[in-house]
Amino acid sequence: MKLYLAGPEVFLPDAADIGKVKRELCRRHGFTGLFPLDNESDPVDGGSLSRTIFAGNIAMLDEADAILANLTPFRGASADAGTVFEVGYGYAQGKRVFGYSNVRTSFVERVQRLVGGGLEQGPDGRRYAADGLAVEEFDRFDNLMIAEALLASGANVVLPLVASADPWRDTRVFEQTLAVIRDTVGTPTRFVIAR
Amino acid sequence: MKLYLAGPEVFLPDAADIGKVKRELCRRHGFTGLFPLDNESDPVDGGSLSRTIFAGNIAMLDEADAILANLTPFRGASADAGTVFEVGYGYAQGKRVFGYSNVRTSFVERVQRLVGGGLEQGPDGRRYAADGLAVEEFDRFDNLMIAEALLASGANVVLPLVASADPWRDTRVFEQTLAVIRDTVGTPTRFVIAR
Repeated sequence: MKLYLAGPEVFLPDAADIGKVKRELCRRHGFTGLFPLDNESDPVDGGSLSRTIFAGNIAMLDEADAILANLTPFRGASADAGTVFEVGYGYAQGKRVFGYSNVRTSFVERVQRLVGGGLEQGPDGRRYAADGLAVEEFDRFDNLMIAEALLASGANVVLPLVASADPWRDTRVFEQTLAVIRDTVGTPTRFVIAR
Repeated sequence: MKLYLAGPEVFLPDAADIGKVKRELCRRHGFTGLFPLDNESDPVDGGSLSRTIFAGNIAMLDEADAILANLTPFRGASADAGTVFEVGYGYAQGKRVFGYSNVRTSFVERVQRLVGGGLEQGPDGRRYAADGLAVEEFDRFDNLMIAEALLASGANVVLPLVASADPWRDTRVFEQTLAVIRDTVGTPTRFVIAR
């Protein structure tokens, strides 16, 4: 079973090393890890590097049987945008999408910290942050589109028991997620979303 | 042609009104707008409200012929996570994805502002923000997965000439994007990504 290893670690200076560690952990758990490496591509056919990386990632996503996403919040309240795109992409193909985060603060907490100020109850029953926009309070780890796609795939986001000292490089929760995937793929998903 | 109107305006207290305006603008330009309304659903079949909204959005995405996404940066350097998920979802289905933003600051500028500090050149040639992670410098409006999916669909992200006074409610750039879509859908895309 091939897992596309989505996540913002491609932006680390030691991305290649982390990719190696992650692929080796996949192997030990009986999976093949496909790790997108932003910085090892050269533009092809006169195209831009950006397009080349995109095409490479899309080809790798198409090859994968499932997506394993590092959903650690990245430069904002939510996961890395590229990772989220890939979770949506894989889910649309009928693949299971799995995810973990090395940070366990709640979505509401992260929004509040980022926006500043408190939350105010609106006349529609929703609570609004200081930016005048509602905060999803569904006890989900991130935006519901991500969270529910994971739940529909059979497992919730995997979180650490205690905060990690190096959330960008720690692979312990990643490894626990591999065990969750192994236990999950053999069983039917909890509910079926019409596709 | 049915357009799924993805965007964070579902989090506004007057989301329903904005949905009406957007749908009416779609009608005037010869499109049918499908607007996801987070706050008008009730849980069905004993499921959670979160799952109900998700299932409703997925059904609407499946019904759409193309995606029109409001990519205005939302609580971070990138677009709203739910919107990004939907762009990836639609793109995987072979649908064209279009997008606009009511804010025209560059991606690099937004990352710098959010993270704080300057940018430093790494030994790999990439520039790194103060959080120790690289910044994509491809002259794209957001993460390359989003930006390239739009370009592969035939049009770049549509931006305002001048900053909008009310970026969450201004529909002028949205309307310009409808004209771009009308001009684009009749022509082949610039390049084909294997799916």
